[in-house]
Amino acid sequence: MDDSLDFVEASKITLNGSLDLECGKTLKTVELVYETYGSLNSDASNAILICHALSGNHHAAGKYKGDKRPGWWDSLIGPGKAIDTNKFFVVCPNNIGGCHGSIGPSSINSETGDYFGPDFPIITVKDWVRSQAMLSDCMGIDRWHAVVGGSLGGMQALEWSRLFPKRIKKAGIIAAAPKLSAQNIAFNEVARQAIVNDPDFNEGRYLDKNTSPKQGLKLARMVGHITYLSEEAMRSKFGRELREEKLNFGFDAEFEIESYLRYQGDVFSENFDANTYLIMTKVLDYFDPASECNGELADAFKSIEAQILVVSFSTDWRFSPERSKEIVNALIEAKKNVSYLEINSPHGHDSFLFNEQDYVKGLASFLKN
Amino acid sequence: MDDSLDFVEASKITLNGSLDLECGKTLKTVELVYETYGSLNSDASNAILICHALSGNHHAAGKYKGDKRPGWWDSLIGPGKAIDTNKFFVVCPNNIGGCHGSIGPSSINSETGDYFGPDFPIITVKDWVRSQAMLSDCMGIDRWHAVVGGSLGGMQALEWSRLFPKRIKKAGIIAAAPKLSAQNIAFNEVARQAIVNDPDFNEGRYLDKNTSPKQGLKLARMVGHITYLSEEAMRSKFGRELREEKLNFGFDAEFEIESYLRYQGDVFSENFDANTYLIMTKVLDYFDPASECNGELADAFKSIEAQILVVSFSTDWRFSPERSKEIVNALIEAKKNVSYLEINSPHGHDSFLFNEQDYVKGLASFLKN
Repeated sequence: MDDSLDFVEASKITLNGSLDLECGKTLKTVELVYETYGSLNSDASNAILICHALSGNHHAAGKYKGDKRPGWWDSLIGPGKAIDTNKFFVVCPNNIGGCHGSIGPSSINSETGDYFGPDFPIITVKDWVRSQAMLSDCMGIDRWHAVVGGSLGGMQALEWSRLFPKRIKKAGIIAAAPKLSAQNIAFNEVARQAIVNDPDFNEGRYLDKNTSPKQGLKLARMVGHITYLSEEAMRSKFGRELREEKLNFGFDAEFEIESYLRYQGDVFSENFDANTYLIMTKVLDYFDPASECNGELADAFKSIEAQILVVSFSTDWRFSPERSKEIVNALIEAKKNVSYLEINSPHGHDSFLFNEQDYVKGLASFLKN
Repeated sequence: MDDSLDFVEASKITLNGSLDLECGKTLKTVELVYETYGSLNSDASNAILICHALSGNHHAAGKYKGDKRPGWWDSLIGPGKAIDTNKFFVVCPNNIGGCHGSIGPSSINSETGDYFGPDFPIITVKDWVRSQAMLSDCMGIDRWHAVVGGSLGGMQALEWSRLFPKRIKKAGIIAAAPKLSAQNIAFNEVARQAIVNDPDFNEGRYLDKNTSPKQGLKLARMVGHITYLSEEAMRSKFGRELREEKLNFGFDAEFEIESYLRYQGDVFSENFDANTYLIMTKVLDYFDPASECNGELADAFKSIEAQILVVSFSTDWRFSPERSKEIVNALIEAKKNVSYLEINSPHGHDSFLFNEQDYVKGLASFLKN
């Protein structure tokens, strides 16, 4: 049975006012694209904000007319699902700097009439949260029932609870970390170097030059993809399986894992913007709330009032359970209301996208009043 | 105190006869470059063969005239060290397919007068071991006191004990695995794609075209380097340290780990051959002795007569202790003489290059008669 929402549609909105960014620049006009599922109740108390991760967008659930595959979090969002659209009004925007309709490097800069390209400012999680608060104002939502996200999305949910304690009742912080490790940054840096060294990158002005740094973006995605899957998942899915019966002693893809990665990289490079990818990795690298409090994470959590659920997955080695526990322990130290779920799942970091029973049940029960 | 061997020199030898490779091709002339340290005793019973890893070469120990830094395994090889050159005659060849003097893609093909380039055949661990056996013949060494190597070098030591049971007394298999995992292959594939998609790669004929795929090789090295270091080592060495006092909101290297990786990649791309890198990664991917015995590793070990020492390192996530234990358990199942050392070390896969006390003592005691 297909239990996806059918025929969802995206909306577009221009926020009221400009947005001062952490980098010191100002976005004079902020256009956001977003989707909503379910209905807002009369006192606007049933709204849930979904924050997307690095390569995500506003199409979190349901299908567009004619689509075979639903949005990226369809396993969790829909009628009767963990984020139940029969009860909740769910909002998912595409973030600033993105490439799926919200203002970003591939948008036209109204001041110059040209693509922003590499001139688009570097964004932070805080900038996103502020833009999402402006979106809440436009939608008449004073206080979110919950803000929920996985990975980089979880960092936004955490930042929401810090920045706007009165405007968020619950925060679901899934497969996230309080900051990137040196290894996390290292992988991001490989991805960035792959992109900026692609001759078709043209210092970020590839749209003006009618080129596309697809090879760089493909490599970036390939290396990223390895960190999303667990070794276990790779082993059980691909192992050392060969595409043909014997070794070919050449450089065509011969192990299944090779052709899988190449395919994933190719598809991604057709559908994503390189400058956006660069910005998204920087947003990740920069996230570090403790840095505002001399490295004391518990101090950075002082303002929080929301009920918080932290979820991690056993085989996630990008943001391992230990990283989630850093958040949990600091919240406990700061005497906050926090629950923690560590889910056994074979899918690595990508587990947050899967319909694991304990995970779905835990999230559903947390979101209920 | 500097206890390195001074003024070592490389030698060059043309092996007697041609070498039939596993891929079906034949190398008619095989030239190998190698170094030796210490003296061969009268009955040629004190010789130790050192096998190098992916990016290694024949310069394992000591210094060339004027050099500041010694060979790659100088921590272990020298007078009074674990591989004691006062007692042992140590031989380290550059492997076929390499780029430091032995026949490889950057050599001239005597049949055509051109660089081999991409026409150089894909090599296997078995091919290397056979070429090393031919080298032993030339040197009058019937039986090695030991064959020792780390990482891909450990795979060669293991293969030696399988292929030439009568010619090897001891095998030291350090930081190795019985085959690559899907994740290992995936990282290699990213490296290969980085190289072959560099426009300066020119389908491998960059030497003919006077180009050099440095950007691709740099990326390959960067991604490889991440897998050589433990997360722990990266954290303690670099953490999230910035090069300047605050975030620069741009794409210059701003975290220390970024500039470290870029530097490592740059240096490597100046000194290594791209076609060699491709071949070396394929050698790794193809290594899988169990595949000859329906996946039964213990069956693949039946021929072994050598005493074997397997060493792994606690923070090695490229070839974790679990992978070493696969070798150990199969050797036990096959009723072979095996010892196992699991060393606590913070340096990840690179630990095999470090002078960790327990490791050095264990190896020294194993090599003693």
